[in-house]
Amino acid sequence: MSKLWEKEYSLDKLIEEYTVGDDPQLDARLVNADCVASIAHATMLERIGILSAKELKGLRRELVEIIRRNDAGDFTIRVDEEDCHTAIENHLVQRLGEAGKKIHTGRSRNDQIIAALRLHARSALLSIQRSCLDLVGTLKGFAARHANVPMPGRTHMQIAMPSSVGLWAGAFAEELLDDLSLLEGAYDLNNLSPLGSAASYGVPLPLDRELVAELLGFRAVQNNVLYVNNSRGKFESVILDAAEQVMLSLSKLAQDVILFSMPEFRYFTLPQELCGGSSIMPQKRNPGMLELMRAKAAAVGAAGVQIKGIIRSLPSGYNRDFQETKGPFLRSLSVVLASLRVADRVMRSLEVNEQALLAGFLPEIYATDRALELVASGVPFRDAYRQVAAGLKSLEGMDPHEAIRRKTHTGTTGNLKLELIEQRLVEHARKAAAQAGEVDRRVRELIGTEAAL
Amino acid sequence: MSKLWEKEYSLDKLIEEYTVGDDPQLDARLVNADCVASIAHATMLERIGILSAKELKGLRRELVEIIRRNDAGDFTIRVDEEDCHTAIENHLVQRLGEAGKKIHTGRSRNDQIIAALRLHARSALLSIQRSCLDLVGTLKGFAARHANVPMPGRTHMQIAMPSSVGLWAGAFAEELLDDLSLLEGAYDLNNLSPLGSAASYGVPLPLDRELVAELLGFRAVQNNVLYVNNSRGKFESVILDAAEQVMLSLSKLAQDVILFSMPEFRYFTLPQELCGGSSIMPQKRNPGMLELMRAKAAAVGAAGVQIKGIIRSLPSGYNRDFQETKGPFLRSLSVVLASLRVADRVMRSLEVNEQALLAGFLPEIYATDRALELVASGVPFRDAYRQVAAGLKSLEGMDPHEAIRRKTHTGTTGNLKLELIEQRLVEHARKAAAQAGEVDRRVRELIGTEAAL
Amino acid sequence: MSKLWEKEYSLDKLIEEYTVGDDPQLDARLVNADCVASIAHATMLERIGILSAKELKGLRRELVEIIRRNDAGDFTIRVDEEDCHTAIENHLVQRLGEAGKKIHTGRSRNDQIIAALRLHARSALLSIQRSCLDLVGTLKGFAARHANVPMPGRTHMQIAMPSSVGLWAGAFAEELLDDLSLLEGAYDLNNLSPLGSAASYGVPLPLDRELVAELLGFRAVQNNVLYVNNSRGKFESVILDAAEQVMLSLSKLAQDVILFSMPEFRYFTLPQELCGGSSIMPQKRNPGMLELMRAKAAAVGAAGVQIKGIIRSLPSGYNRDFQETKGPFLRSLSVVLASLRVADRVMRSLEVNEQALLAGFLPEIYATDRALELVASGVPFRDAYRQVAAGLKSLEGMDPHEAIRRKTHTGTTGNLKLELIEQRLVEHARKAAAQAGEVDRRVRELIGTEAAL
Amino acid sequence: MSKLWEKEYSLDKLIEEYTVGDDPQLDARLVNADCVASIAHATMLERIGILSAKELKGLRRELVEIIRRNDAGDFTIRVDEEDCHTAIENHLVQRLGEAGKKIHTGRSRNDQIIAALRLHARSALLSIQRSCLDLVGTLKGFAARHANVPMPGRTHMQIAMPSSVGLWAGAFAEELLDDLSLLEGAYDLNNLSPLGSAASYGVPLPLDRELVAELLGFRAVQNNVLYVNNSRGKFESVILDAAEQVMLSLSKLAQDVILFSMPEFRYFTLPQELCGGSSIMPQKRNPGMLELMRAKAAAVGAAGVQIKGIIRSLPSGYNRDFQETKGPFLRSLSVVLASLRVADRVMRSLEVNEQALLAGFLPEIYATDRALELVASGVPFRDAYRQVAAGLKSLEGMDPHEAIRRKTHTGTTGNLKLELIEQRLVEHARKAAAQAGEVDRRVRELIGTEAAL
Repeated sequence: MSKLWEKEYSLDKLIEEYTVGDDPQLDARLVNADCVASIAHATMLERIGILSAKELKGLRRELVEIIRRNDAGDFTIRVDEEDCHTAIENHLVQRLGEAGKKIHTGRSRNDQIIAALRLHARSALLSIQRSCLDLVGTLKGFAARHANVPMPGRTHMQIAMPSSVGLWAGAFAEELLDDLSLLEGAYDLNNLSPLGSAASYGVPLPLDRELVAELLGFRAVQNNVLYVNNSRGKFESVILDAAEQVMLSLSKLAQDVILFSMPEFRYFTLPQELCGGSSIMPQKRNPGMLELMRAKAAAVGAAGVQIKGIIRSLPSGYNRDFQETKGPFLRSLSVVLASLRVADRVMRSLEVNEQALLAGFLPEIYATDRALELVASGVPFRDAYRQVAAGLKSLEGMDPHEAIRRKTHTGTTGNLKLELIEQRLVEHARKAAAQAGEVDRRVRELIGTEAAL
Repeated sequence: MSKLWEKEYSLDKLIEEYTVGDDPQLDARLVNADCVASIAHATMLERIGILSAKELKGLRRELVEIIRRNDAGDFTIRVDEEDCHTAIENHLVQRLGEAGKKIHTGRSRNDQIIAALRLHARSALLSIQRSCLDLVGTLKGFAARHANVPMPGRTHMQIAMPSSVGLWAGAFAEELLDDLSLLEGAYDLNNLSPLGSAASYGVPLPLDRELVAELLGFRAVQNNVLYVNNSRGKFESVILDAAEQVMLSLSKLAQDVILFSMPEFRYFTLPQELCGGSSIMPQKRNPGMLELMRAKAAAVGAAGVQIKGIIRSLPSGYNRDFQETKGPFLRSLSVVLASLRVADRVMRSLEVNEQALLAGFLPEIYATDRALELVASGVPFRDAYRQVAAGLKSLEGMDPHEAIRRKTHTGTTGNLKLELIEQRLVEHARKAAAQAGEVDRRVRELIGTEAAL
Repeated sequence: MSKLWEKEYSLDKLIEEYTVGDDPQLDARLVNADCVASIAHATMLERIGILSAKELKGLRRELVEIIRRNDAGDFTIRVDEEDCHTAIENHLVQRLGEAGKKIHTGRSRNDQIIAALRLHARSALLSIQRSCLDLVGTLKGFAARHANVPMPGRTHMQIAMPSSVGLWAGAFAEELLDDLSLLEGAYDLNNLSPLGSAASYGVPLPLDRELVAELLGFRAVQNNVLYVNNSRGKFESVILDAAEQVMLSLSKLAQDVILFSMPEFRYFTLPQELCGGSSIMPQKRNPGMLELMRAKAAAVGAAGVQIKGIIRSLPSGYNRDFQETKGPFLRSLSVVLASLRVADRVMRSLEVNEQALLAGFLPEIYATDRALELVASGVPFRDAYRQVAAGLKSLEGMDPHEAIRRKTHTGTTGNLKLELIEQRLVEHARKAAAQAGEVDRRVRELIGTEAAL
Repeated sequence: MSKLWEKEYSLDKLIEEYTVGDDPQLDARLVNADCVASIAHATMLERIGILSAKELKGLRRELVEIIRRNDAGDFTIRVDEEDCHTAIENHLVQRLGEAGKKIHTGRSRNDQIIAALRLHARSALLSIQRSCLDLVGTLKGFAARHANVPMPGRTHMQIAMPSSVGLWAGAFAEELLDDLSLLEGAYDLNNLSPLGSAASYGVPLPLDRELVAELLGFRAVQNNVLYVNNSRGKFESVILDAAEQVMLSLSKLAQDVILFSMPEFRYFTLPQELCGGSSIMPQKRNPGMLELMRAKAAAVGAAGVQIKGIIRSLPSGYNRDFQETKGPFLRSLSVVLASLRVADRVMRSLEVNEQALLAGFLPEIYATDRALELVASGVPFRDAYRQVAAGLKSLEGMDPHEAIRRKTHTGTTGNLKLELIEQRLVEHARKAAAQAGEVDRRVRELIGTEAAL
């Protein structure tokens, strides 16, 4: 069976390997999405009279069968087929003849791959959001359990002022909630139907783009057909920008936990079952998964750099360069999801050592608080500041617990307002659940069964 | 007058230059915002009894005076003062004595700089949004005027299918509308009050953070005080990610216009008054501003890479590394604004040469349409495709105008739906105007006059 | 069979997947290099009395056997084994018992992986250099064949001054020769033996590091054992920086060929057998491999960004983050090699259409030459410039061939000095051949047969 | 006085600001280099008969005068002049009339700016190399003074094996020596004369490019005139890649010193005069310059990303995009130089606290050494490894000094081989001094006085 565009000549082998690249492997993730989009497209073609009811029925049956086989690891894409689109069409033609040849009517691989990527990204984003919500919940619980455990607050990595484990964990919970908003914005942008744009210029057939969008649960049609192709890579980079913010949050979390579980701190202890060992040093309990999380943050960032670098100076319309955006995009979605799950696993089992934390309260940590006491008694701040700087010795013996209780304004150790986290968590969770429910319902109605996209 | 933290020793000169960097120059853009935030902070300090009404009055007067002098180019930050915060405080102490020394109570340069950056970014984002809306309007008008002008549609930069100038321009209008949504998301994230977080750990004083947020027109307090500092660089990178999407849109627009105004195309002509010349070749009319737009897209991208690279592996709390995020952030905001204005200027004066566009309609451009005609008459697509490929010669003499009229489904040449652009434009414009009005009103109420932040 | 560091607890499954990542796939490329390095290490252990002659003999035999199986696609690394080092050691223990357990004496996976990467990179760099030399040769031949074919010279993508196909192709040949120097610099840096550094701190055994370096054909021992580990990622990024320069050269070449083979230019024609087609447009001959080359330049660039991003803020000594540098490094080496081969394939078959090139000589292309004629007759340049600018019409009818012949100073159309390219080519080729011969000889002497590293 | 290419129309103001950008500020650094290159060019024009001896004399005098004024801060570039080239030519025409108008004969601003950048970069690289050598010397001395001071060796930031301050410092010295080789490679690439390439296509005049190259002390002419312009941005990025490696070395050094001067370690103490303070916390001694060094490493990296991103998809010949490579290039050169000087300042005054280092020797640090003792007595390594892992308690009371003395193979604590550093230092210093001497001599001979380029 041949390539979709094969005519009389055969493609040079060296060139073939170069141009096909790792598409056959990558596209395995997109087979289900491509089949579901094809069923929606075929359904529309039947409505506008291009396919018969019988042809549609056959196509739907075979496409669902491909999904089943793909889930069973039983659908392969050959290098000479290049991508999932060709492999699927080849299968349909082989099984259905004429009907298989008609499925490509009114579309191009250009809008087909965009549709598959968006359906896949939509599902991946919902999983990422769910894992992010789990982690926010875990962090909030961690903050609540350790709300009154003092922790040396640092600036410049030096000891600065009294803080608490609750404040520390709450900071990450709030950061991830902001990341969730970014993910949701990316979700909305992505949730637009590209189908019907074909190779960027539409087709002279009365396609019903709105119907296809509805069948697939997209929130709307992406209108301008040229823009559809111009947005290839762009939407991916917007999604990765949001994903990178998640990774930046996790990287900071990882950095803190690695640092504070060093023997010189022992604020935290990582459970043994999460730590790798050393091939040469028997005593080691290494935070390998946290180091990799830090490094994977750089990997997701580089994926965004790659995609934006590719699209930056492309002229309008489809250019083959887009193909190179697929790998970094798909791989990064997996990395972010796994990283959130690992972070949740870590935070669920991280032990807090209050004694070690208290040992970190060197006298100078109280200097600012003392200066502000002087202020409260009427000394101008700059004078109080110089006065305390000159008498740091006098700060010994202050009480860490008291110090964190005494800060009571919004968002500080004595007033964490964890209930705000809970409220936002509930709202985001409700929204994500509604979207996931809608996606599942649409797919079920369209293909008659469930499918993981 | 000395640095805020100066005690008994003097800082090594080499180190001073290295650590101060270009802060004195950059901070000139932040003086007004810092003064406005200081007035809000002082107003709150008076409410909670730390400043007297008289002290507040003096502080407000002097801070407004600094704004006035800064607007007149008459307020300078000396290298030994390091930054605008110190220069302003020095001024206040010099003029007001005790009251000046009290203004720093309950804050740190950490939350001060974040507040100034957010106020400045808020105003810059509003200007960027306005210029983006202008450009969308210009592009929409351009698309409407040239809706029926045929243009060769390309994929792989090769001639592909019939398209129109209207479709081409409309694609950019819709892309920029999506960029506007990203800018708005970044605006909302940025529009949170950091004040009261001090050096990341709050203070043992009954600060009223909600009051300060309200006075400055922020939509809310950013709650967790450690997160406030952890979000330094993060919010900037979210803003730059949105800004980079704008630049990616403009870069593609620039690339198209450069390409299509080459003598081999002459689809477009750039007006002479926008083009630079050559120092050695008298005949040249170079699209320098568009080439620079393309390059500046890479510059804004690199600014984001820099900021994310800086924050990626920082532990919690303030680290001096943040200082290096200020330059790329502020400079990029200016670049994006200027680029939008230049793009608008270009699109307002770009000439369209219909004859040159029609000359680009080589016969093969109609191949796909012909294949789909065969499909409409019952031939399976794959067979039609091979049939047309074998007889490309027969496509001569087809009519470009007819070809673009015949595509009538949503979003294509015969059905551009420019009214959707208009609707979205109006909504975004209304939102931006409301936000700008609110910001202006709050500032006026707080400081008694207008100020450009 | 267990992990090297396995003790009593079992690693959490989620964590295992996350930390192992795609090492088992990636490490397939490193099995041979790891076996060869192990033979060298074992040879040294025998010399210093840790292994018996018989143990060494057994180890060598089994390691060669693993290479043989790996070449036959018959050696697999299981996920629970994590990486090639463990899989190989497991195999040795299974076959040889005690001797297998001794092979790890005096080393760590830290120096083991560095050694394998360097041996692999050394071979990959030699292949890249050879392909680069081939392409330089092809470009030089292309330049020679078309030395007198006029080509419009451009600046700002606008028509500027008379040029030639010879000058155009020669520019790329010279650029790639400079890239070769960068590759050679990276080769020398990489060609240092890390073995004996163990986990960054050496071992209390009398290892003979010089012997191991000599056996493996490294130019020297990398001295400081901590620096060995600190240079992980660093050397890879230096290699990728050189490789990226190659890709930047190829990207520009690709951009030119794509542009100048558009129907509006037709300066060049790509042979049909190298071009992909379109799934919807039967007439297309798309330069897909050149678009991908352009995009892969961004991919290699992003790989460098990733690696540098990962190492930028790591403290001294081994950190698990390094693992994430392996994928982008190995994949980029393959991409560069394939890109050079594809570029060579393209340049060997690219057709030059002289008529189309001559048609590009619009009259204004001669303006600067005319201005300089006036200069030669005594008119100051600035005046000549303005005079010609005012009379562009008079330039019609000039002769392109004459125009390119008349420039005779060094390095221009009438004096390309292609012999300089030839000289440099010969020198680089001699050097690369000597290095390749030395590498092959050392490996053969060490393991008794040939092996592709 | 007008722009070089000014004809009859005036450039739109908005466009002018956008296209001129910060060139007037940046070009201040290039005025001297441009004047020196102009004297060489004029000297050659006189030899080939285009300038009279008298004209040359006048031009040389005025150009030296401009250098003098520029050094005195007395030569300004107006926005309407765009860049230093125009400002200088305007000055010459004003003072010399005809002769001033002739200086541009046979060149373009394209090769002029490349020449100025290369002369400036050559001098900057020599300064960077000198400062790098200073730092290597300082680190070597530091390593020698503390060769026998034990330091806990780490992997995964956890305590791993016995190490020494000597090994730690020596690692950085060796890394910087490798960086020096990269800088030298970049120096050689950069040290080629671009003059005579004009706007990429040479000129129909008998320019003597070899003479100009010799007068300016370039090692050779860069031959192909199109390649000269194609290498714009490329050479800059090669230089920045080498510079970034220096910054990566410094960033790791900074990270280590920041970490190990935290109160929980106190291995090192930074002298008070190098540390900034806090505006709110009187007790702080912040390693601000080291945090900034870390961040500036990201800035230099981003500068490289920007430049490569700009040039990646440019077609052949000059494109205005190149202008945006100037800022990141020039600024990065300054950053690297300053960072090296600050690092040297830090290492000259860093105090080592042996007691704190010894306190870090927890018993498990000896585990690997013990395992290897068992190996030396005949136990297979894997068995020894498991045996020690089971009895970590027995390792108390071992002697750190003894532990670091007992490792005697090449490059480890008992055998640092600092003499290798000294040898390499001497060689690099000799080479750099010879190059600097040659550059100074050539400039002096050419212009009759000294000038800082």
